[in-house]
Amino acid sequence: MAFAFQLQATNGAARAGLVTTTHGPIETPVFMPVGTQGTVKGLTPEMVRDAGAQIILGNTYHLALRPGDELIRDLGGLHKFMNWPGPILTDSGGFQVFSLATQVKITDEGAKFRSHIDGSPLELTPERAVEIQQNLGSDIAMVLDECPSLKETTPAKVRAAVDRTIHWAARCKAHHTRTDQVLFAIVQGGLDINLRATCATELVAMDFPGYALGGFSVGEAPEAMHAALPACAALLPEGKPRYLMGVGRPQDLLAGVASGIDMFDCVMPTRNGRNALAFTADGPIRLRNAKHRRDSTPVESGCGCYCCANYSRAYLHHLFSAEEMLGPTLLSLHNVAFYLRLMREARQAITEGRFEAFHAGCLARWNTAS
Amino acid sequence: MAFAFQLQATNGAARAGLVTTTHGPIETPVFMPVGTQGTVKGLTPEMVRDAGAQIILGNTYHLALRPGDELIRDLGGLHKFMNWPGPILTDSGGFQVFSLATQVKITDEGAKFRSHIDGSPLELTPERAVEIQQNLGSDIAMVLDECPSLKETTPAKVRAAVDRTIHWAARCKAHHTRTDQVLFAIVQGGLDINLRATCATELVAMDFPGYALGGFSVGEAPEAMHAALPACAALLPEGKPRYLMGVGRPQDLLAGVASGIDMFDCVMPTRNGRNALAFTADGPIRLRNAKHRRDSTPVESGCGCYCCANYSRAYLHHLFSAEEMLGPTLLSLHNVAFYLRLMREARQAITEGRFEAFHAGCLARWNTAS
Repeated sequence: MAFAFQLQATNGAARAGLVTTTHGPIETPVFMPVGTQGTVKGLTPEMVRDAGAQIILGNTYHLALRPGDELIRDLGGLHKFMNWPGPILTDSGGFQVFSLATQVKITDEGAKFRSHIDGSPLELTPERAVEIQQNLGSDIAMVLDECPSLKETTPAKVRAAVDRTIHWAARCKAHHTRTDQVLFAIVQGGLDINLRATCATELVAMDFPGYALGGFSVGEAPEAMHAALPACAALLPEGKPRYLMGVGRPQDLLAGVASGIDMFDCVMPTRNGRNALAFTADGPIRLRNAKHRRDSTPVESGCGCYCCANYSRAYLHHLFSAEEMLGPTLLSLHNVAFYLRLMREARQAITEGRFEAFHAGCLARWNTAS
Repeated sequence: MAFAFQLQATNGAARAGLVTTTHGPIETPVFMPVGTQGTVKGLTPEMVRDAGAQIILGNTYHLALRPGDELIRDLGGLHKFMNWPGPILTDSGGFQVFSLATQVKITDEGAKFRSHIDGSPLELTPERAVEIQQNLGSDIAMVLDECPSLKETTPAKVRAAVDRTIHWAARCKAHHTRTDQVLFAIVQGGLDINLRATCATELVAMDFPGYALGGFSVGEAPEAMHAALPACAALLPEGKPRYLMGVGRPQDLLAGVASGIDMFDCVMPTRNGRNALAFTADGPIRLRNAKHRRDSTPVESGCGCYCCANYSRAYLHHLFSAEEMLGPTLLSLHNVAFYLRLMREARQAITEGRFEAFHAGCLARWNTAS
């Protein structure tokens, strides 16, 4: 097993590192485009790679339901199935069970729920989450965790979720056998730094090869997350990769990097791309806006991505007006390229000891954008 | 102006030729993928080119309505707008007015109608059809014709449409000024060979650089079309390219080639691709069918297209089941590649004097497919 993490440079709490996996190296900080159902929506793997992606994410819950993890295993694994030869990280499915499935019932044994596709009854235990990910054959697998919302839960519920997350992590580790795949642990605990510390201490004692912060995803309470991130990240071992799950907006990624996070994933670049919203160095722009109708400039001047190198805002505006598939494809591609470039630039700034100025400069440009 | 047509080989009535245009050469017989709204649906121009396309089609009616031909002209023309550097043929918009617009009223002056997008009142005259196409800057423009359905019209209506088509062709020719673009005439006349002959004689006397057969498109009465094609094609000048508009299925293209047609366009490969139907040398297959769920073979064995080189039927089945955009993209790509390869193989067979056997072999395989 070729997995390793090398810390290459630090700048304040921010870190530049190198993760080595079975399917190749990853320079951190890194953004991982999300390929929920075995495809980064609307993009070929070559487009994703050419946009600069080094690793993508696949979703255990979705793939286990459809087409099925055993089918993917029998066809040679997820890399071959989806034609992505580089590293893949799979989540544990826990977050999707809590956010997508219906009639969810959680016990210490695991989660019982009904499929959001056909209503069929299913069960996800720590052992089953590991089995699925071993069948998929990802380079980095995640433990099953209980993932309560930051907004809608009580202290007692958060504490119970932390206890369960710790026990489930131990069961996942005991069940994990695949030697070409590593298993990362997930620290829960909401906004309670003492609970986060308890969770981290227990999990660090189990000696996982990498650690994630869960429970911060999908734009919930971003200011609270920004405030909590430095202390939470500091709970994780310095010599192992740190992954902030499901986050977020460009400013959230930079807050994570500033706190010492190495890895990120989020559906925002592709989801917003499908909805005609583009991220740029001067802030977001909406391509459906009539002001772009005759605009011969690219989505983002200076961006070297395929979309910006070859097409005008006017053309993108037209594609979205005419509901042509190529619009979502091109703008997803640009947004993924933007996120990837942002992390490359952050890494460069860390290496050169100027991350704080880089961070402040980005925020200033985005906040002043029209 | 670089336009030329060179007849390179004949085999029975079938022909192999070379069309030279401002934006490059075209080996015939050729299939032209349809980019109705300034994009071949779901594909990047590079995908279209890599599938083997030498020329694509744009739709005058759609582009004039949205984003507007003057906007495209101001942004540098259709080639630049859509990032397709090769040859483009634009239709006249007549067929779409008759099939898509509402409240269509035709007089000798032109067609008055309402936009299918927003109901706004519009007019398409022969002069306006030429102006639009000159604004778009296509390599090959088409005259405005009146295009009655093969099935739903009376002999008197067909005769009136032929008369109008002849007069409109003369007006288009008189109005056409762009020297880097040629204007093809369209022969109408339905299934009446005498009317077709009248129409062709009049149009040939006007000395257009190329001729099309109109009124056969979109799968109407294919047997009647197959029966009429040899005589209709023979009405067109031997030394100029012959274009069968809007046709059709693979067997219809081969019937056209056998009759001496050089150019074809049709939405079938992309439309069927979006609906999970793939064309193959052994006949069509439906990727949604459950029998493909675990099939590790490509859509078409031996096909060298990007889809078949990299993905299994099982993956395509999954993409269509999960309603992922990449499914329509990959299968549109394969189908376009199939049509382009069919024409390349037909050309090769003509050059080697074995087109009849090639034609019979294709039909035998398609007819015996399950």
